[in-house]
Amino acid sequence: MDKRPLILITNDDSINAKGLRKLIGLMRPFGDIVVIASEQVMSGMSHAVTIKSPLMPRLVHSEAGYIEYVTNGTPVDNVKLGKHTLLERKPDLIVSGINHGSNAAINIIYSGTVAAVLEGAIDGIPGIGFSIDDYSHNADFNFVDKFVNIITKKVLDEGLPSGICLNVNIPKNSKDKIKGIKVVRQAKARWVEEFEKRIDPFGRTYYWIGGAFENGDDRADTDEKTLKDNYVAVVPVQIDFTAHAFVEKLKF
Amino acid sequence: MDKRPLILITNDDSINAKGLRKLIGLMRPFGDIVVIASEQVMSGMSHAVTIKSPLMPRLVHSEAGYIEYVTNGTPVDNVKLGKHTLLERKPDLIVSGINHGSNAAINIIYSGTVAAVLEGAIDGIPGIGFSIDDYSHNADFNFVDKFVNIITKKVLDEGLPSGICLNVNIPKNSKDKIKGIKVVRQAKARWVEEFEKRIDPFGRTYYWIGGAFENGDDRADTDEKTLKDNYVAVVPVQIDFTAHAFVEKLKF
Repeated sequence: MDKRPLILITNDDSINAKGLRKLIGLMRPFGDIVVIASEQVMSGMSHAVTIKSPLMPRLVHSEAGYIEYVTNGTPVDNVKLGKHTLLERKPDLIVSGINHGSNAAINIIYSGTVAAVLEGAIDGIPGIGFSIDDYSHNADFNFVDKFVNIITKKVLDEGLPSGICLNVNIPKNSKDKIKGIKVVRQAKARWVEEFEKRIDPFGRTYYWIGGAFENGDDRADTDEKTLKDNYVAVVPVQIDFTAHAFVEKLKF
Repeated sequence: MDKRPLILITNDDSINAKGLRKLIGLMRPFGDIVVIASEQVMSGMSHAVTIKSPLMPRLVHSEAGYIEYVTNGTPVDNVKLGKHTLLERKPDLIVSGINHGSNAAINIIYSGTVAAVLEGAIDGIPGIGFSIDDYSHNADFNFVDKFVNIITKKVLDEGLPSGICLNVNIPKNSKDKIKGIKVVRQAKARWVEEFEKRIDPFGRTYYWIGGAFENGDDRADTDEKTLKDNYVAVVPVQIDFTAHAFVEKLKF
């Protein structure tokens, strides 16, 4: 008899996030679950790992087929702890999210949600990072079940090529029905930062990060365009920073 | 009369690192310098940005053509502060490092050093991340001048395509002379983690991250192979996580 799939779940909005609870609920019918999530909010932590201090995971829930740890680490730390130490065997799938806020376009590089599944992909573990285009703490996840289920089932059934995982962005809930799922590419975009300058009670200057998202990419097959058109955007992603086309051109 | 180039310098080993001081010394003949570096060691911080708390840069040195700030932020925060707030104009070049330790292969995704120049590339600013394959606090940088100078001069003279920057890894000093500079690709490699388990005085389990680097990539034109062969490895890099070859194959 085959074992039930072992699914590792994490996120970057902390163990208390509504999106994580939603994702856990959706994953339980698919297999045995181990949640390893951060105590603190880890938004913007990208692929950061904790080197200067030790990690202290705490088991906070354990029943047959469902285990939950909370940690002082980053999302990538959580996956490293899972795949090398806390899990009895290599997981069949890593899912991360559901992130409160889009991780399309340039947001992927700041995202702890997607970093977590990329970390699994390094070891050939299939992974899916789910995000919804709604930053609200109380984002509406009620309409996402169908899409999360279709994508999860496909990845569990068919796997993914080694080193590749999926960055899935779901449009915000609106009166218009989501039109379907499209497989597309990361849009080229950027944040135009405007730091807000303030003076503290001791006369020192400090800055809060701010800014506006600017999409300068008008290609039809990007995640930004797809989200705008009210489709779920699936981008297969991998870790290869090489600008291959320029390798041949640069000479020393 | 043309202005002297404006060069922004940062790193991830903190403002006190020997590698940063070496890089500042090498850059001063090339232009006007603004250093924005972190007070604390930021190794392994990847592309993390500080969202939960404000940034407080402090001016610690100012003379004609040479300014130095220390901050409570990450390497990417430092570049964001530089390009949007602290610098009078967009810099002509961002250099980062010289990192104590290789940022070849998979190390690039954990690296704050390379993240800093990638952050500049988002806005089309040419950048070079320099690292040496020597983790020692007191690494020997005496032999690097020639290579840093050649690469910097070329980038200042010719620029780089928008969105692309360079990840430069220099072999550790040895009795064998470095053979030259090669332009290559990021090797596929991974860290095989082995967390070291310990018990604290209160009986709680904690883990220190550890592990061994494993290069499973035998292609001739990778950064790992090039470093091993005692060449300086230059990889042109960009932010595009899309696994393009798989986009056409995945259907929903």
